[in-house]
This record gives sequence, structure tokens and C-alpha cells, in this order.
Amino acid sequence: MGASLGPGFLHGHHFHWQCPCLAHGLQPLAQYEAIRDELTARGHQVTVLVPSTFQASQFHEPLPFQVEMISVPISKEEVETFIQDFLYMWSYEMHELFFWGFFIKLYDIMEKIMSTTKLFCDAVLLNEKLLEKFRSAGFDILISDPCVVCGELLAEKLHLPFIYSFRFSSGNTLERFCGGMPSPPSYVPASLGGLTDRMSFVERMRNMLFYFSQDIVFHQVILKDWDKYYSDILGRPTTLCETMGKAEMWLIRTYWDFEFPRPFLPNFEFVGGLHCKPAKPLPEEMEKFVQSSGEHGIVVFSLGSMIKNLTDEKSAMVALALSQLPQKVIWRYKGKRPETLGANTRVYDWIPQNDLLGHPKTKAFITHGGTNGVYEAIYHGIPMIGIPMFADQPDNIGHMKAKGMAVELNIHTMTAKDLVDAVNTVIHNATYKENAVRISQIHHDQPVKPLDRAVFWIEFVMRHKGAKHLRVAAHDLTWYQYHSLDVIAFLIVCVALFVFIVVKCCTFCCRKCGSIRKKSKKE
Amino acid sequence: MGASLGPGFLHGHHFHWQCPCLAHGLQPLAQYEAIRDELTARGHQVTVLVPSTFQASQFHEPLPFQVEMISVPISKEEVETFIQDFLYMWSYEMHELFFWGFFIKLYDIMEKIMSTTKLFCDAVLLNEKLLEKFRSAGFDILISDPCVVCGELLAEKLHLPFIYSFRFSSGNTLERFCGGMPSPPSYVPASLGGLTDRMSFVERMRNMLFYFSQDIVFHQVILKDWDKYYSDILGRPTTLCETMGKAEMWLIRTYWDFEFPRPFLPNFEFVGGLHCKPAKPLPEEMEKFVQSSGEHGIVVFSLGSMIKNLTDEKSAMVALALSQLPQKVIWRYKGKRPETLGANTRVYDWIPQNDLLGHPKTKAFITHGGTNGVYEAIYHGIPMIGIPMFADQPDNIGHMKAKGMAVELNIHTMTAKDLVDAVNTVIHNATYKENAVRISQIHHDQPVKPLDRAVFWIEFVMRHKGAKHLRVAAHDLTWYQYHSLDVIAFLIVCVALFVFIVVKCCTFCCRKCGSIRKKSKKE
Repeated sequence: MGASLGPGFLHGHHFHWQCPCLAHGLQPLAQYEAIRDELTARGHQVTVLVPSTFQASQFHEPLPFQVEMISVPISKEEVETFIQDFLYMWSYEMHELFFWGFFIKLYDIMEKIMSTTKLFCDAVLLNEKLLEKFRSAGFDILISDPCVVCGELLAEKLHLPFIYSFRFSSGNTLERFCGGMPSPPSYVPASLGGLTDRMSFVERMRNMLFYFSQDIVFHQVILKDWDKYYSDILGRPTTLCETMGKAEMWLIRTYWDFEFPRPFLPNFEFVGGLHCKPAKPLPEEMEKFVQSSGEHGIVVFSLGSMIKNLTDEKSAMVALALSQLPQKVIWRYKGKRPETLGANTRVYDWIPQNDLLGHPKTKAFITHGGTNGVYEAIYHGIPMIGIPMFADQPDNIGHMKAKGMAVELNIHTMTAKDLVDAVNTVIHNATYKENAVRISQIHHDQPVKPLDRAVFWIEFVMRHKGAKHLRVAAHDLTWYQYHSLDVIAFLIVCVALFVFIVVKCCTFCCRKCGSIRKKSKKE
Repeated sequence: MGASLGPGFLHGHHFHWQCPCLAHGLQPLAQYEAIRDELTARGHQVTVLVPSTFQASQFHEPLPFQVEMISVPISKEEVETFIQDFLYMWSYEMHELFFWGFFIKLYDIMEKIMSTTKLFCDAVLLNEKLLEKFRSAGFDILISDPCVVCGELLAEKLHLPFIYSFRFSSGNTLERFCGGMPSPPSYVPASLGGLTDRMSFVERMRNMLFYFSQDIVFHQVILKDWDKYYSDILGRPTTLCETMGKAEMWLIRTYWDFEFPRPFLPNFEFVGGLHCKPAKPLPEEMEKFVQSSGEHGIVVFSLGSMIKNLTDEKSAMVALALSQLPQKVIWRYKGKRPETLGANTRVYDWIPQNDLLGHPKTKAFITHGGTNGVYEAIYHGIPMIGIPMFADQPDNIGHMKAKGMAVELNIHTMTAKDLVDAVNTVIHNATYKENAVRISQIHHDQPVKPLDRAVFWIEFVMRHKGAKHLRVAAHDLTWYQYHSLDVIAFLIVCVALFVFIVVKCCTFCCRKCGSIRKKSKKE
């Protein structure tokens, strides 16, 4: 997702710079873990660069990779508090704001994220001793998330080729302006805009205005600051996009099972679901509970790890709704146990989500719509009830709705009846399961598995020291050259000049004829 | 290549419609043969639909596939004569024509090709007995070349999913208008335009005008005729592009080793070089000759199978040039033996080109620049001297020049010294060999081999009865919707209305103020 915080994840003999993405608190992203572990398994030496705010408890000794801890002048608690405040605001306040109010709020948040991110960047890029250590380590490649700026800057400082891996940027600004990806607004919905690829006239207009608003934010807020920072660090005039445009590959964490078909470039590879794996057996107690569901099966319910608690009122309503289902329900929830909890529902602090979704008894998945969970549902072909809250979640659920394998509920307005109806719909209306199975088949029927493709291109860049043959020449054009505006202007001038000359000649001839006729009349 | 003639190549339990492409006389295309043979080897039943003008001698019994011979009211000799006249004209007359003269000539040729193609189409599509036979055969898929229209029409009649495989259409008109492929003229050179992806202002203008001229030919010549034909056959108003736009996949016979990086769509797969194979041992006599070249190595020389003879004068000049090389030369040539032929040169009616290019003694390849030969040179990493004559050949050699693995000569103006210099350049200037090896490495270093990818997607469409998840929604938009012109026009009107109202209000207020001031002055 777009907004992210600070550096981390360096790998090498090739070399990683990843971050504890804001959207994932202070934990590593599942997709990066999958890549890191696969590279390690193939015998590569991987170094992960993490800031001191990172939850080191996420790493279980003995580690098969190196960790380089970067000391940053900000505490774990400060970051944690900022993230929780931010999420609360986005989940519970943002939806009440009007269009422009939303963007003004977003602007404030981004300013804060940027100033924090700069602390992380400074901690690495101004630390000459550390840079020297990295230089002498002989890394071959750096892998980074473009939403966490500075990865590419470190690569540039170390003269290393680099690869991106991410989900998307808001309004696809990074992909379009820095990656060169074409996005016709008539059928490519802007990320976070909540539209599909089939739009009415009004929706196409909304989409274009959304792109436009994101472009303004990008150019007026993000580029303004970072262009200067990048020029200062590199000691020559440059821009964020010029540096980002040097990425050898963009590994996008979706695929055409999820994504609406759209134009893309040869150095974009869609590797969605690369972290997905077959289900493992459940813990004994949980398996017993699941088996007790009989023919009704079970419903898996998780709103992710970021929003830990609902309000008491909301959780009571949810529990009441779940108690009315004939299915057994496994609910991941850390808050106070609601009194309305039914006998069919069990609450857990943590659940083996992938193993549950892959269980033959599982009938439906109630989810906030995080990309990981959505891909696990696609992998196992489970229809969803989406209760999206912020960031990419509404977009993710929007995609799944459009593909016919999800219904959507609004956390702010839904009633117990809505939730019960939604679960019944995806379970008893066969089209949801059929679509889920069809999309799952599409996911599994690829020439090469997503993780293998991702690792192939990482290794390719290491073997060939880049993948320049995949990089479009568009990067060397200005925006008006890219859109051929100079050529069009020149041709219009030529045509205008031609018309002008023809008209002048005609007028001149007419006058001549006129005066000759007058003369001959006089004579 | 663009211009092609008539039907042929039907495969089934899935099912093929291919043509003896004009550019390949009356022989099957190597790329189609590779796909056909691989499908057969994997146990598929393949039926190849060929017109009676086809050289049946190309098929060696016993055939592992079915052949359905279509009787067409035109003789082999007529087609052969037309092709030879056409090639002669394109090779030796066209280059003397001015820009517009070229297009007028091309228009004439295309009219002739179209009327002949219609004979082939009629022979299948108006033959109800044949259609019934096809229907009852239970085919799963049809594979066709979009440059040979009617394949998609047959698929539509038989309610079969279909896949395209081809090199390109002139000015990429089919890919753009029927396939939905975006081609920004600022960095995507139009096919047959002879430009690269790095263009000066003047070249970008030339490119845009070339696209424009091709668009006019396409809409005014091709669509006009075929839209009516397609509507007549299907018995409902439709267009060529609407029917072609239903293609499940477009298998393009190039790859990023050869192609300039450009935007493309999820249902386009670049499978260039799918016919390439490792070299087999040479015939004994040829191997002896090759080995006799010592450390100098050999030069392979072929201008393809279509232009069989050069003029006597030209062949004498070429032979003289070759005689001055220290290398041994193997020359595929069917014409009269020139008297100037050196002892180092051997002339053959036919050569095992791929085996020669893969021989360790081979230093350079003199070629007309057909796609097959160019890809064999890429496969084996052999630098080229290109002497392009017509069709896609100048474009192919242009690509190889831009990638630094070829020099180009003009068949009409080149001297013996030019040829000798060119061979010496690609052999002794190390960059040509280095680039050839680099590009060859790119070709070989793909996650999946081109032929396997092509067959994967054919089998995918058979398994899932289509690949609709890869088809962009752009197909359902009109041209002005696609370019968002309606939205832009609406927004301009809104802004204009807003400005108008503001100005009117201001004028009104000013007037009011003015009249009040006047009044108060009076008072």
C-alpha cells in the first residue's frame, strides 16, 4: 500500500532495503518474507536492513539471513502511537469527510509520514561508516518498496541495480510518473478510487478527477520535498522520479485473477499471491471444533492485525449476528469478549488463517480485505464478506465484488441482519462459490508460480547486472514529448500556416481579378 | 508479416486456421509448424486447413495431423505469379516511389490481395457442408493469423474460442484498433516505419504521420470492405475489429531481445524465436568445407527463399566481394553461377541454415532479414549483415542495428567494397559479437521457453474455454470514450459555463455598482 514508513531490509550478496510498512505496523510484509526466504533457500546471502523501531521479536533465531539494525532517533512507542492514531482516524473519521476535506486530512498525514521517513533515510544515507560497510560487502542487488522512498537512493549511492516490489501507490502516481506505466482513465480505475474497469460516463469523470487530484498531491506535496532531498544526497540536480525510473523491475503484488486487465510494461511483473501456500493441518483443539460444524461448515472471521478492537457496541452486534448462523465461526479478535457471543463462535487472539481458509469445511471468509487475506481466499477459492476500513481495503473488496466472489458491508452502517444476510448470500447463492473456484483456477493455472517468477527476475538482474532491455524509452522524454504535444503543436501551426497562405493567395487573386474586371469595365 | 493470402491450418480436437502467408509463398510458416508439431507431440489432435493452392509436397507422409484441403477457384500458378510479381515490385520498384506514390501502389496491391483472400474465405464460409463437418468434429480452439482475415470469422461461425499468432500488422493497425494495444507514437515506432524507440523531433513527427497514414489506409480500404463481408456472413451488423477483438490471446512472434520495450496488454504474449532449436550436425561434405576454413571461420549467406535470383550483374558483384574474404562462404542461391565466384565460396540450392548458424566456426550471417533467420541468429548469437528488400525485412534489420548486432546494406546501391567492409566490421569490431552474445543470453534467459509459453496459453484457452480475465474493458468503449474525449469536453463546458457565470455576475455587479454610484452622484 501507498503510505509507508522508513527503511529496512537489505539483502546481499545481493541486498534488500525493505520497511516495516505502515500498513503492517512494525512487522515485515508477508510478501517480502516469502521472497527473502526463497532467496535464502536458494543459497543467496540476504541482508535485511531494519530500523530500531522494528519488532525484533518477529525474527526467530537462528536466522538464515543477516539483519542490519539502523538506529533511528524515534522510539517504538512513538511510531506505534502514530500508526494507531492514523488508523483510527482513517477508519473512523475519514469517511465522514467531504472529498476535499479528505485530501486536506491526507495531506497532513503525508507531511507527518514524510518527516518521519526522512529520519529513517538520514540514519542510513548520512552515515558514511555504514555506507562504506555496505560498499565493501559486495552486494549484487537491492530490493525495495517504492512507497518507502530512499531505497532507490541507497542503491544509487552504492551503484547497485535495484528491484521494486509493492502493491500500488495512491492513484498509481509512482507507476505512471516514475515507472512510465500508461493508465488510460477511460478503463483503468485509479487505485484507491474504488471504481472498476467498466465505468459509466459519471464514473469515468470521477476517475479522471481522482487521477487529477492525486497528480496534484503527488507533484505539489511529494515531489517538491523529495526532489530536493534526492538532489542534496546525490550532490547533483535530480528528481525522485528520475531515480525511481532506474528500477530494473517492478514486481506488483497482484495478478489478473484480482486485477482488472490493463496495459503494462515489459519490466512490470504481476506476482500476486506469491506468499500463498497449501494449508497445513490445524491445531488439534481447533480441528475438533471445525469438525463439530458438520455439514454446515465454518466461517472464518478476521479484521486483520492492525485494528485490534472494535467498540463494545459494535462487537456485541457482530457477536449477536454470528450467533444466528448455523455455521461454526472462528473469530480472530483481541478485544473484550462480547456478552452476546454465541455457542457456535470461538474467539482467538491469533488464527492460522491460511490453514483455515484451505480447510475443506470452510464456507466463507469475513475479512477487512487486506491484500494477504484476499489472496489466501483466492488461492483456496473461498467467497468473502468484505468489511473494508482503510487504505487498499475498499479497493481490494471492490475488485473481489466486481469479480463476483465477495459482498461488501460498511462497518459504520451495517446491522446484525446485514451481516447474517451477507454470510447467507455468499454461502447459499452458488455463483459466489463458482466465481471463487474459477478465480482460484486462474490463479493456479500460470506458466510459472508467482514466487518463482519474482525470484527469477531478481536472479536475472543479478546475473545480467540489470534488465535494461525491458526499460521503455519513455523515461528519456519530457511530459510534453511523451504525449507528442510538441509534434501536434508543430503540425497545427503548419496546417494553420498553409491555410493562411492559401486564403491570402485566394484573396490576392480575387482582388487582382476584381481590379482587372473593373479596368476592363472602365475601358 | 502484414499482407497475407487466404486460409489454411485448422487444428482440432482443437483446431487451426492458418495460411500460406504471402510472405512465405505457398509454404507453411516455421512458427506455425513449431506450434503444430508441439501440440501434436503433446497428444492433441490437430487439423490443418489449407487451400488447394498450397504446396502439398510440404507435408511429408505419414502426417501426425489431419489436413483439410479447401478447393479454391484459383490455380497454384496464378498465386505463384502474383506473389513473384508483387515481390519484384516491392523489392525493385517500390523504393523508387515517393511517400504517397508508395501508398497508392500499396493500395492497389492490397485491393488485389483482398479480392483473392475473399475467394479463400468464400470457399470455407459459404460451404455449409464443410461447416457442418467442422461443427460435428467437436473442435476446442482455432488458431489463426489476423493478417489472414476470416480465421476469426470461421471461429465465430463455429462458436469456438480462437487465438492469434503473428508478427505484426503494418503500422500496428490490427493490434491497436482490434486488439486494444496502446502505442504512444512518441516512443513506439510504427511497424514498417523503419524507426527505433529513440527518436528525434523530426522522427517523432514522421512516426506520427506514418501511424496516421496507416490508420487512413486501414479505415478507408480494409475496414470498409471487410466490415460489410463480416456482417453479411454473420447475418448481423458487425465489424472486422469487433470480431477480431474477441481473440483470447495474441501470440506475437518477437520478444524483448528483438523488440523495443513498449506497453502491451495481458492477453499479448511475446513468443519470438519459438521455432528455434539447437544446431544439428552438418552434412559430411559441408562440415568438411566448414572445417577447411581454419581460424578465419565461415560466413553464411542467404537472401531467403522468396527472391530466388539476383540480376546477373548484382550476383557477379556479390560473388566478387565474397571472393575477397579470408573466410569460407556458404551461399544459398538458386540463380546462375556467377563467373566471379571465388574458391572460398560454395553455392547451394538449400542450406541447413539453423545448423550452420549454430556451428562454432560461423562468424557472420549475411541475410535479407526475415524474422526466422534473424531469430536463428539471435538464438546462436551471430552478428549480421542485413540486406533487407521488402515487407518486415527493413524493420527487422533496423531493430538489429539499433541493438548493435547488425550493419545494414542497401541492395540497390551497395558496392563490392561495401559488402567486404560490412563483413569485416561485424567480424573484427568486437562490439557486434558482444552485443550478439548479450542478446542471445537475453533470449535464452526466460522463465519459460517461447514455444512452451505459446502452447501453455493455447492449452489454457482449451482448458478454460477462453481467457476473458485477460481482456481489457477498452473493447467496449467507442474511440472517443477510450480517449476520454467526452469527459474532457464535458469538463471544458463546465469550466466555461462557470467562468461565463462568474463574468456575468461580476459585470452585473459592476453595472449595479455603477448605476448606484451614478444615482448617488445625481442625488
